[in-house]
Amino acid sequence: MAKFSRREVFGVGAAGLASLYLPSVALGSSQGSRGRPRNVIFCVSDGMSAGVPSMLDQFLSTVHGRPSFWRRLLQDGRSVQTVQETCSLSSLVTDSSAASSAWGSGRRIVNGQVNCFPDGTRLIPLYEVLKDRAKLATGLVTTATITHATPAGFAVSHPTRDEEAQIAEKYLSLGVDVLLGGGDRFFNSSSRADKRNLYAEFARAGYRVVRDRASMLALRPGRKVLGIFSSSHVPYEVDRRNRKELRDTVPSLAEMALKAIGMLQDSPNGFVLQVEAARVDHAAHSNDPAGILYDQLAFDEALEAIVGWADQRGDTLVVVTTDHGNSNPGLMGAGDEYFDSMAGLEKLAEAKASFTTLLAQVGTQPTPESVREAVREHLGIGLNAEEAELVSKAARRASDLQKVDLYSGASSALAMALGNHYHIGWSGPSHSSDWVPLLALGPGSRQFARGWMKNSSVFDALLELYGIRFQNPPQMSREEMLRHLGKRKEALRRAVREHWLA
Amino acid sequence: MAKFSRREVFGVGAAGLASLYLPSVALGSSQGSRGRPRNVIFCVSDGMSAGVPSMLDQFLSTVHGRPSFWRRLLQDGRSVQTVQETCSLSSLVTDSSAASSAWGSGRRIVNGQVNCFPDGTRLIPLYEVLKDRAKLATGLVTTATITHATPAGFAVSHPTRDEEAQIAEKYLSLGVDVLLGGGDRFFNSSSRADKRNLYAEFARAGYRVVRDRASMLALRPGRKVLGIFSSSHVPYEVDRRNRKELRDTVPSLAEMALKAIGMLQDSPNGFVLQVEAARVDHAAHSNDPAGILYDQLAFDEALEAIVGWADQRGDTLVVVTTDHGNSNPGLMGAGDEYFDSMAGLEKLAEAKASFTTLLAQVGTQPTPESVREAVREHLGIGLNAEEAELVSKAARRASDLQKVDLYSGASSALAMALGNHYHIGWSGPSHSSDWVPLLALGPGSRQFARGWMKNSSVFDALLELYGIRFQNPPQMSREEMLRHLGKRKEALRRAVREHWLA
Repeated sequence: MAKFSRREVFGVGAAGLASLYLPSVALGSSQGSRGRPRNVIFCVSDGMSAGVPSMLDQFLSTVHGRPSFWRRLLQDGRSVQTVQETCSLSSLVTDSSAASSAWGSGRRIVNGQVNCFPDGTRLIPLYEVLKDRAKLATGLVTTATITHATPAGFAVSHPTRDEEAQIAEKYLSLGVDVLLGGGDRFFNSSSRADKRNLYAEFARAGYRVVRDRASMLALRPGRKVLGIFSSSHVPYEVDRRNRKELRDTVPSLAEMALKAIGMLQDSPNGFVLQVEAARVDHAAHSNDPAGILYDQLAFDEALEAIVGWADQRGDTLVVVTTDHGNSNPGLMGAGDEYFDSMAGLEKLAEAKASFTTLLAQVGTQPTPESVREAVREHLGIGLNAEEAELVSKAARRASDLQKVDLYSGASSALAMALGNHYHIGWSGPSHSSDWVPLLALGPGSRQFARGWMKNSSVFDALLELYGIRFQNPPQMSREEMLRHLGKRKEALRRAVREHWLA
Repeated sequence: MAKFSRREVFGVGAAGLASLYLPSVALGSSQGSRGRPRNVIFCVSDGMSAGVPSMLDQFLSTVHGRPSFWRRLLQDGRSVQTVQETCSLSSLVTDSSAASSAWGSGRRIVNGQVNCFPDGTRLIPLYEVLKDRAKLATGLVTTATITHATPAGFAVSHPTRDEEAQIAEKYLSLGVDVLLGGGDRFFNSSSRADKRNLYAEFARAGYRVVRDRASMLALRPGRKVLGIFSSSHVPYEVDRRNRKELRDTVPSLAEMALKAIGMLQDSPNGFVLQVEAARVDHAAHSNDPAGILYDQLAFDEALEAIVGWADQRGDTLVVVTTDHGNSNPGLMGAGDEYFDSMAGLEKLAEAKASFTTLLAQVGTQPTPESVREAVREHLGIGLNAEEAELVSKAARRASDLQKVDLYSGASSALAMALGNHYHIGWSGPSHSSDWVPLLALGPGSRQFARGWMKNSSVFDALLELYGIRFQNPPQMSREEMLRHLGKRKEALRRAVREHWLA
């Protein structure tokens, strides 16, 4: 039987008592713990289809002789495992902003918006509620721009995910305590349309602002940090690991996560922190095997650090999930008795760059020879003439794949050519409607022992843990949504047509 | 807390007492029940990647306004959810025979063999152990040939899965009580190389032999039934539902499963029954969206019937899983705000035939026009000229896809052309290495509350439930396997070369 510590049974104790609590390993069970957490850390591997954690585990086992932390976490048997569906109001296939808003407001919304209905109704975001009602400190960590859809959905309401410069302002208004990620161009006066210097504004509001890894690591405990480490997204992990200038200046996801925890852990009433491996999603969109594996590895390492910290405390709920599948990669059976599949993973150990880096080098009109050279240089793979020709033709929009919506891009053709070597396939270039896993461990994890849950139920589950009764305005119906969206879509269509006419 | 019925605590009672037991809905929890089952029903949707049950649920919700049984089963929260890995001894990607043998012997073996090591070591299969030690009655139900890899792995040991005529003989030797599926050609004297009439031999051994749906449904209770309903595999469900001559003569998976249960339920010491939706795997190999959805629907309906029966009893463990992923299909985001994805599923409601039926009609040298006609006739979709040309070129091995191992077949090109309409993509034509879900409910389900488990641990988990201490010979190492297989692969290569030279 699970044993419950006093504080789990009797409610939230003082932070200073944390060391008295049993580590959650002693409390755990697959039914989860009923207790009330002091802190919540919500970990998202964005766009992580089912095959991604298994493929990482197999890559680590095959190439490095060790299992993934994800597997060890499952194996110790104390995580609640739940299936989460991932629909939005506008589609069976969500985007990241509608998915994050489902968690962040308890409501389904239209893809592309952040915590609002298409008629303009504002939905109060999770962090605002937890700050107001439970006095929690708040943090966002991501490898995307810090203003990207997934972190934004926890903290702000905005009509469109695309206005990241405004989302940055809203973080300041709300006073999110810790912000670590990419997106300099939304803070820097030289790249903002309104020429505001948001760094200066955050500094005036009491934030310490850091712009590189060393400065971040040197930060002393204390609230309010803004750390921005790249112009747009943080580099792909496969690029970061293989380029010294990136390794030296850009922190890893685990480093950002642990620093955020260090900043937040002494908050008097606990904290809520979102940690996102955002570029798993980006690599999936590009069908990039090394890209996705190394960013999932960064997530795995962050998870190990986070759960290790939480285990010492015993007062922190850790949720681990994804917002949706993306491109459903799989290591495919290849060769007699599928003997060749493992060799595919072994070849991935040679990869030194993301598809984005590689394709930027060959440009939009690559010759077969330039494709072969770049693939050999960055991935250590010798494409044959036909494979290089396929990629070259696709980049020049001259291949049979131009007729196929799911594979018309140059990166799809590159993935197919490399698929002959890696034996990894992709089911398209976009998000999928697959149900996804959600794991929960630590006090309050029992809230997630539901077998199957909607993404929009996560909001209520989290608020209940803090005894907060709050509901956003009722769910907009699909019919109402279509009424409102009809106008917007028509306007969008007109805009597109006018753009073409202009 | 879960309540345990007397028989769960005190062991197996008589079958006639079943009605006294609490239905397992009262016993359930996500930690599972500790009790000891009288019966085990092991349900396999073969080759079911993560996206398949979600896509079926979304298809049913969108087109028929109701959820899948799979979702309702998860939602009621009483199933143990575990992650199962699916490797074999020869590859990270298993085939069905090595996967079934992992369950059936507790050992990893080489793809293509059934419960033996490549040096010839025979592994005693699960059914033989359960028959000998626990006196259980045994049953196999499948929509493949009854002698196919997955059912075979529960009951026999054989050097190769391909010798189905011999596997049929081994079923007779072991005396599997109920056998329902396809595969006439392995029983019929006119198609067997040795001209033996296996139907007559089964009849002499006390089996009632049935060859069509009506005869099967008319069977009175009692042990020993052989029901064979097609020459090879049972037709795809999308074909069966849409062709009266098939509907009238071939039973559904649910009908076969319930009939098998009816035959086995009065066995004095309980029974073990494997129920397989085999053609989910075949449809995945063909990248056939309607094929996979309707066969998963047949599985879903069988599951509802099985769990409904088990709930009335309260003495039966139901395990629900797959042996491996296959081709990782996904409904992909399409159009502005992914608005178009749902329309893709709606179009699937028009499908009236499998890819196999459609492609057989157009032959190996189809013109674009014949492709368009067949697609319109069977699927109700109007391909444009470029899409039809893509399929025609691929069938004639003249498209750019010929260079791509993962998509070189005509059915891959058909799936890609239809992907423009259905927005369903596939990551290849073969099995994947993805971890898969395993659900367990009813007495003994706690055996599976492990968070993460190897496929080969299922064997021990099942034997423990019956208090049986038994281990097959120790796991062969990968090195030993390679030593033995080296010879065999060399022989195989020689054989292939000789075949080409001949």
